[in-house]
Amino acid sequence: MPPTGLADLLRYPIVVAPMAGGPSTAALVIAAARAGALGFLAAGYKTSGAMAAEIAAVRAATSEPFGVNVFVPGTPYSDAAALARYLGSLGTAADLGEATWDDDSFDGKVAALLADPPPAVSFTFGCPPAGLISALRDAGSIVAITVTSPGEAAVAAAAGAGALCVQGFEAGAHRGTFTNDDAPGRDYGLLSLIGEVAAVTGLPQVAAGGIMGPRQVRAVLAAGAVAAQCGTAFLRCPESGAHPVYKAALADPRYTATTLTRAFSGRPARGLVNRFIRDHADAPAAYPEINNATRPLRAAAAARGDTERMSLYAGQGYRSAAEQPAGEVIERLCGAPTR
Amino acid sequence: MPPTGLADLLRYPIVVAPMAGGPSTAALVIAAARAGALGFLAAGYKTSGAMAAEIAAVRAATSEPFGVNVFVPGTPYSDAAALARYLGSLGTAADLGEATWDDDSFDGKVAALLADPPPAVSFTFGCPPAGLISALRDAGSIVAITVTSPGEAAVAAAAGAGALCVQGFEAGAHRGTFTNDDAPGRDYGLLSLIGEVAAVTGLPQVAAGGIMGPRQVRAVLAAGAVAAQCGTAFLRCPESGAHPVYKAALADPRYTATTLTRAFSGRPARGLVNRFIRDHADAPAAYPEINNATRPLRAAAAARGDTERMSLYAGQGYRSAAEQPAGEVIERLCGAPTR
Repeated sequence: MPPTGLADLLRYPIVVAPMAGGPSTAALVIAAARAGALGFLAAGYKTSGAMAAEIAAVRAATSEPFGVNVFVPGTPYSDAAALARYLGSLGTAADLGEATWDDDSFDGKVAALLADPPPAVSFTFGCPPAGLISALRDAGSIVAITVTSPGEAAVAAAAGAGALCVQGFEAGAHRGTFTNDDAPGRDYGLLSLIGEVAAVTGLPQVAAGGIMGPRQVRAVLAAGAVAAQCGTAFLRCPESGAHPVYKAALADPRYTATTLTRAFSGRPARGLVNRFIRDHADAPAAYPEINNATRPLRAAAAARGDTERMSLYAGQGYRSAAEQPAGEVIERLCGAPTR
Repeated sequence: MPPTGLADLLRYPIVVAPMAGGPSTAALVIAAARAGALGFLAAGYKTSGAMAAEIAAVRAATSEPFGVNVFVPGTPYSDAAALARYLGSLGTAADLGEATWDDDSFDGKVAALLADPPPAVSFTFGCPPAGLISALRDAGSIVAITVTSPGEAAVAAAAGAGALCVQGFEAGAHRGTFTNDDAPGRDYGLLSLIGEVAAVTGLPQVAAGGIMGPRQVRAVLAAGAVAAQCGTAFLRCPESGAHPVYKAALADPRYTATTLTRAFSGRPARGLVNRFIRDHADAPAAYPEINNATRPLRAAAAARGDTERMSLYAGQGYRSAAEQPAGEVIERLCGAPTR
């Protein structure tokens, strides 16, 4: 019998967050599974073939449950002049890629997941249609939707989601808001968000955002979540595919704060404050156009170790990210507080 | 023997937050004390004589401990043209007061507190000098400093604070940041903030921001705080001095989100999104000049029941604020979760 709810997939109340763009690897998800946590592959920015290959690698290594996270596509950015102006302000046309819109191969990924359903599928940047959610569920996957507000939670519940990933304002990398705009009411801190979401739906909540230690895990469980989803806590693990200079930056005392920025991708994301963020506070809401345009720029910066022009995405607790195998991080998160 | 630490003042792990500008009354602090919580009078915007009268009223009604919160003054805003431009944009010169700077009678209030020390004194908007903190401590008061970041916590600890009020991004009304600027790194969600502050100081933490129910109280205690400080949860109590139309707005389905704004006061504060906030997103960092200028405008709006031009300060959990006596709210916060 297939699992009927997210709780059935959780040995420990820890979810290793999908971190698209490098950090999430099959190795990280395998290490999570072996340590009793539920790891998520990050399908974002990959082809559906690459996603399928990672799923196969996880299945070959473990029979424990895992999940796959998929980005829900938005719509092309409509103000070409504003986009061109922003790209011009980056001042490095030679380093820039094409500012193309894409749907991140959504249909292909979904088809692959329906054909070979993983134990869990989560979505970010929107809520897929109810028909797709029920198809994935019928295929045998638990379907979770990432939400940042009680309003988004209500939409996800109405669409038939089996669980919610509730993402607090503390969380690193992209905000999972359904729309890419500046509407108020989606800046909930995690503790508020858990409470507000519980007021609109009884769906199981996986709490994400700034969770770095056992006290915070216990806190979100006390608040009503069924599990804590941690990303930044695993960024510096050997199993993380984050670039070595990115890993080093997380422990570099020169980086003293995180902030939300559209500078790298066109969608709000939390990262360590560096020169690129300071210099480009005015990025328009053009996602993934800006993300595609800045990819070569970011890659070149990483290649030369220039952390001032890389996207150093991280949650508010980044200082506690340890250079430690994922299994040990999971043990620490589940263990007794040490202070 | 006077109490030596904040924990000695806490029968229940609940602090009723100081809410300057009306909501905090002697009656609310008395009700808190009688119910086993620690209530704070809000000295902000009052004369030191009015503050002393409230202290006397509390002392006359109960021998239980209470606290007094004092605003630490900043510096006058230097860009007179920007301030004038903003005031001009409000379009109601007849309704506006003088945009004067003041120090909120800081010295007079401190002198009164030293002469007649309450069990606890907390400060907001900055950290007073070490000599003043030790003088208050020697006089018999526990001194708590409001902080919004680990950096501010380190400053407060070095100055000799006896406790910290750690204010998460979720919290209603003014952010307690030491400086009135847009420096990054002070947008911590409460759960992150508790962890980050614990990494720099072992001082007892009173956790504030979005705490509306027993699950959230348990969560902040699990996270390591000694108490939860709640403000919005008490706004609609009969003992709260919030204007009736403000109380009603908190339950009005037309208000669907909170945001941070400088529109009313010149300092970032969280409130229900209304027309005034939407129309005046560009307020300069002129506090208390703008607060003084908009006071008559806000009072006139309240008098005619126009909630679109009042400062409806509230934390992210405002929907759970109940019209209920403070003692019952405290019981609910300390009780078993009902869902």
